[in-house]
Amino acid sequence: MPSARQLSEFALIKHIARRFGHYRAQTLVGIGDDCAVTTHNPKTIQLITTDLLIEDIHFDLRFVSYRDIGYKAMIANLSDIAAMGGVPRQFLVSIALPSSLTQGNINSLYEGMMEPARKFGAALIGGDTSASTDKLFLSITLIGEVQPAHLIKRTGLSIGDEVFVTGTLGDSQAGLRILQSTIPTKIPISSQKWLCQRHLRPSARLDAAQKLAKHKLATSMIDISDGLSGDLSHLCNSNKVGATIDLTRLPVSSNLRKYSHYANTHAHEIALHGGEDYELLFTVNPNSVSRIKRWNTQNILHATHIGTIMPQKQKLKVITQTGRTKIMPIKSFNHFPEK
Amino acid sequence: MPSARQLSEFALIKHIARRFGHYRAQTLVGIGDDCAVTTHNPKTIQLITTDLLIEDIHFDLRFVSYRDIGYKAMIANLSDIAAMGGVPRQFLVSIALPSSLTQGNINSLYEGMMEPARKFGAALIGGDTSASTDKLFLSITLIGEVQPAHLIKRTGLSIGDEVFVTGTLGDSQAGLRILQSTIPTKIPISSQKWLCQRHLRPSARLDAAQKLAKHKLATSMIDISDGLSGDLSHLCNSNKVGATIDLTRLPVSSNLRKYSHYANTHAHEIALHGGEDYELLFTVNPNSVSRIKRWNTQNILHATHIGTIMPQKQKLKVITQTGRTKIMPIKSFNHFPEK
Repeated sequence: MPSARQLSEFALIKHIARRFGHYRAQTLVGIGDDCAVTTHNPKTIQLITTDLLIEDIHFDLRFVSYRDIGYKAMIANLSDIAAMGGVPRQFLVSIALPSSLTQGNINSLYEGMMEPARKFGAALIGGDTSASTDKLFLSITLIGEVQPAHLIKRTGLSIGDEVFVTGTLGDSQAGLRILQSTIPTKIPISSQKWLCQRHLRPSARLDAAQKLAKHKLATSMIDISDGLSGDLSHLCNSNKVGATIDLTRLPVSSNLRKYSHYANTHAHEIALHGGEDYELLFTVNPNSVSRIKRWNTQNILHATHIGTIMPQKQKLKVITQTGRTKIMPIKSFNHFPEK
Repeated sequence: MPSARQLSEFALIKHIARRFGHYRAQTLVGIGDDCAVTTHNPKTIQLITTDLLIEDIHFDLRFVSYRDIGYKAMIANLSDIAAMGGVPRQFLVSIALPSSLTQGNINSLYEGMMEPARKFGAALIGGDTSASTDKLFLSITLIGEVQPAHLIKRTGLSIGDEVFVTGTLGDSQAGLRILQSTIPTKIPISSQKWLCQRHLRPSARLDAAQKLAKHKLATSMIDISDGLSGDLSHLCNSNKVGATIDLTRLPVSSNLRKYSHYANTHAHEIALHGGEDYELLFTVNPNSVSRIKRWNTQNILHATHIGTIMPQKQKLKVITQTGRTKIMPIKSFNHFPEK
């Protein structure tokens, strides 16, 4: 198969458009003109998000496949649409390709993006392609929509609101550590595989988010990409409030427990700080707690009550396993590490 | 001033939002939530474009300032909105910053983007930031709008339509050669400066495009980013037609003529193939030619009649200075050069 070096830019765009650019009714013009053209749904407002993935910053090609990279890039964007209660519609892909990439690699990358995009109804309508001197760059811009009454913002909560998270936390971080590790461990292979999949193929909680949006239950919401402590800190800063989180309540998978046992770490530490889970952190009025819990038992969504919003002066606190209350350490993922 | 290495990602986003993120009435939520949120204008349809600029592929920091990079990245996007007859509204910026960049460099980059964005009414509403291991990477997604009846697509022309271009061609390419040259030339300094400015600070022809759109005069339009021969070839391929272009009619600036004289090249060659002019190439029905020419004399727009659309079997041809008709050589800018 030809490499990026042997492809003309226009042949590549034509190939991508033909293979992946099937667009929906709301799109008047897709790939192949100066702009994509879309119509509005008069009942909705528009959501727009963009997420950047860069080789050796966000992923390491020693541990991930091109398909995984595409998949996760799309999940990161879908998760942002979920966090506002929205429905994804269309996306554009800007990509810079090192000359070593083959047509097969490029197809895998796009297949990875298309898999969750197709599942949730988002269509590829445009983008830009370029060579890269060195690293692979991938930037997706995703457009979605939401009925105005269903929009869930990062702000809007009240003191006393209860804090929930979807799914389980920390799996992605444990999966990354397993992928990066060169030392064989005693952790069961099935647990290792499961945790690695949680890192490589996270879920976007669109169904749960849309359910919350439709019933106007969430008073605020944010997706957990930087880790619970970091994203809770963003949420609280945006609302000028504090929060107390009960560490013993953090939802931890049985596989993360096994990992923590063998790796001699605390599962709750990983759950508190590990990034890239793409679960949702949301708040509800205390009156709504019973409804969320009923939905849990009915398998309508899977969310765990982990704490309460407090006045700002109380700051961010955790209740530890021994019942002590202390200031929450914040270890947010930072792409600009201090050196 | 601190460098990117010393900035936290969140401090950087906060700084960008405060300094550059002033948004307009159509934006409900700007920087600082999971998505930006915008309302629709029910009378218009939406245009979306994205353009990628990468260090050492699209620009060389030895010759351009950070402000120039930002400026040109925005022009490339504005020019795509112009090419559909649209009005720019909002944009998102994804940026990967090498650790050597200072806060001052980052400000210059954003100032460069904001200058033409403000002029044409586009507001910064979101984006993503990351470190980069090596090169600077900048991806802008620009959203615009157009009344459905005013949309100008790349397709739609008829055989016999007349071909026009705005402004003058080839200046940007000559400016780039001057910037890259290490040999002193006899070209007047004022001409050198003017050509370099045309490369560093091109214009987006939004006013001309909107005028054509409003009067429904253009039967097709494309912006010239790859060079006239390349973009005419895209236009003709999209419409399955040919075209004959009169080389003697190509609009060439007096400064490009001076450059060509001293550099011992043909101005028309540079005008035919040079990229990054961001002028508009459009077609009109023969009945509309007189109107375009009248607008020229009234200084409403500045466009030159350079040729005619022909049946596909006639291919792309040029009439040379000696009156000969020959197949047009196509030297389109390609980011994936064959080696």
